[in-house]
Amino acid sequence: MAAASDEFEVGYDVAAAIGASIEDIETPALIVDLDAFERNCERMRGYAETMGVRLRAHAKTHKSADIARYQMTHGGACGICCQKVSEAEALVRAGITDILIANEVSGRRKIDRVARLAKAARILVCVDNAENVGELSAAAVANDVTIEVLVEIDCGARRCGTQPGEPALDLARRVAAADNLVFAGLQAYNGPAQHIEDPVDRRAAIRRSTELAHETVQLFKANGLECDIVGGAGTGTHYLEGESGIYNELQAGSYIFMDAHYGRVRGENNQQVGGFEHALFVLASVMSKPGPGRAVCDAGLKAHSVDSGLPIVFEAPDLIYVSASDEHGVIDDPNNRLGLNSKVKLIPGHCDPTCNLHDWFIGVRNGRVEAVWPVTARGKLY
Amino acid sequence: MAAASDEFEVGYDVAAAIGASIEDIETPALIVDLDAFERNCERMRGYAETMGVRLRAHAKTHKSADIARYQMTHGGACGICCQKVSEAEALVRAGITDILIANEVSGRRKIDRVARLAKAARILVCVDNAENVGELSAAAVANDVTIEVLVEIDCGARRCGTQPGEPALDLARRVAAADNLVFAGLQAYNGPAQHIEDPVDRRAAIRRSTELAHETVQLFKANGLECDIVGGAGTGTHYLEGESGIYNELQAGSYIFMDAHYGRVRGENNQQVGGFEHALFVLASVMSKPGPGRAVCDAGLKAHSVDSGLPIVFEAPDLIYVSASDEHGVIDDPNNRLGLNSKVKLIPGHCDPTCNLHDWFIGVRNGRVEAVWPVTARGKLY
Repeated sequence: MAAASDEFEVGYDVAAAIGASIEDIETPALIVDLDAFERNCERMRGYAETMGVRLRAHAKTHKSADIARYQMTHGGACGICCQKVSEAEALVRAGITDILIANEVSGRRKIDRVARLAKAARILVCVDNAENVGELSAAAVANDVTIEVLVEIDCGARRCGTQPGEPALDLARRVAAADNLVFAGLQAYNGPAQHIEDPVDRRAAIRRSTELAHETVQLFKANGLECDIVGGAGTGTHYLEGESGIYNELQAGSYIFMDAHYGRVRGENNQQVGGFEHALFVLASVMSKPGPGRAVCDAGLKAHSVDSGLPIVFEAPDLIYVSASDEHGVIDDPNNRLGLNSKVKLIPGHCDPTCNLHDWFIGVRNGRVEAVWPVTARGKLY
Repeated sequence: MAAASDEFEVGYDVAAAIGASIEDIETPALIVDLDAFERNCERMRGYAETMGVRLRAHAKTHKSADIARYQMTHGGACGICCQKVSEAEALVRAGITDILIANEVSGRRKIDRVARLAKAARILVCVDNAENVGELSAAAVANDVTIEVLVEIDCGARRCGTQPGEPALDLARRVAAADNLVFAGLQAYNGPAQHIEDPVDRRAAIRRSTELAHETVQLFKANGLECDIVGGAGTGTHYLEGESGIYNELQAGSYIFMDAHYGRVRGENNQQVGGFEHALFVLASVMSKPGPGRAVCDAGLKAHSVDSGLPIVFEAPDLIYVSASDEHGVIDDPNNRLGLNSKVKLIPGHCDPTCNLHDWFIGVRNGRVEAVWPVTARGKLY
């Protein structure tokens, strides 16, 4: 047994080269159907334009500077959202310069990092408590920067956010009065509503969120505080907030890719919501065919996230992905169509945490690899 | 808005410095209680020694060369297991030189990579079909290396593996006859049995697996094929295969860390199986305290895997992690003990895919950071 030497090459970090055929992509790999992705971007651009609202595309879905740039140059996005300071840092390093951290930022060091980031980009954050306003202001003063701030209300998600009405007004006043902070508006995001599969129930949930946002915006206005931004919405409800006359910035992310869960979120015409297409897949290979009716593929829990259900085998209704273990997926194959090394395209159950598992997006068109994009902010949790 | 300049520093990639206090670790972060980790390693070393079997610790749990090295130098491990070729490559690059890829390796390029890897390390793989044996042999010949091969049987998991008995014998003969392959023994791993929470049911499942392994080993022997290795077992059943008189290499992984699911897998004394302790935590901070009874922390689906259930707040039975979204965890806090920036230690639901989400293990002892280990093979899926 020899020690590793210069002539001993092991592995490579990218699963495919530009120009390779799909068959030559090393699996499991995260692939993007570029035609479908571009159509999805164009659809959302058109919706925002028709509804007369801005799109601030959510980069927590993809964590990719390349995709964020495409959304801003071709997809009608005025800027992007992300959720974590380290995501924003990674995207600013990669040249994205208009970012809403659509989340509270808490803790002295994280707040200082936000302030430093504001030296290089337009940075907006959310707040839901008064202590946080003071800390953000102090860090902005210390770093000689301006930070734009949205007051977040809980409009039904029961996660973060202060209460609508007077508590929100109190925070907005504090922001407006704070040194080096700019009061930029209201954040009213109802995350769980995105995922209500029935369109009537979904509409009802957003009606209530919109009422709360409306009342709060009016209260702000009556007290001399104008909202430049009233932000919220996601892929499942973009058309509801977009047509509300209250919201003016949509924060949708998943529309570019869709996933198996979003495939069950129906629009009011009973089509897939917004007409968005599946554009993201985990390409997997059969690595064991141990008996009739069953195939085992090489994509398990470390290749896709099952928090919202198991993946679906794309355009193969007779193939059912029935169980995931760490590195394996068992597929029911009643017609024994799959052999060793057969490829399957899996629609992941949930796109956002699935992208976060991978280092690269492999963009494909007409059966060939056209782009290889790093998942710029993968693992940027803090 | 200025462009990024040299004086503008953004972010850092490691969540803590050696010597920092736990309070100063940037969250969310994956932390290891080094005392508990070392005690777990020592316990398993002792069990293997007492039972007279080898331990081939499974690195799919941690994907860390530092931990693999510790297991081999202090934890009684004869070598390690992993699941993917790219994991083996990363670990060989980091100096680990005795690796069982406890899985089938399928596809021309992956098989060629295995053969190249065998130039620098002792490499073993599993097979469950004849075509694969021929391909492995051809690649071993082409690269002028020897690859050791275990024949994998399905001993109850209904995942990979050929049938026990004659089909396994046929494969073993092919391996033994193939150029540049060495028949090394039997792989008989019953993964689902590890996770049966009731100890009586778990024992019954392994009894059947052990019978199948025994019959197959005897059949091999009657045909002149001795098994150097009879491998299998995991944390949940290590004592069953270990005492069977059939198995001689245990492939346990999770015992070093444990997780919330394994906390429910009881030993026959109704203690946590093997007496192993929780040694792995996701350290999280409260980043919103929007109302009484509820706190929101900064660790969601991208910081821990929920495939086996939600995390548990360590040593705080009154705090219940009730829901995870991508970047948030909602904690029921009926006594309002948590304030903004309070730290919580979460026992993840499932340790293996949780480790795969992080870039670093932060090793802590006596409240201080003592070690920072890269997750060497994070994201190595192929």
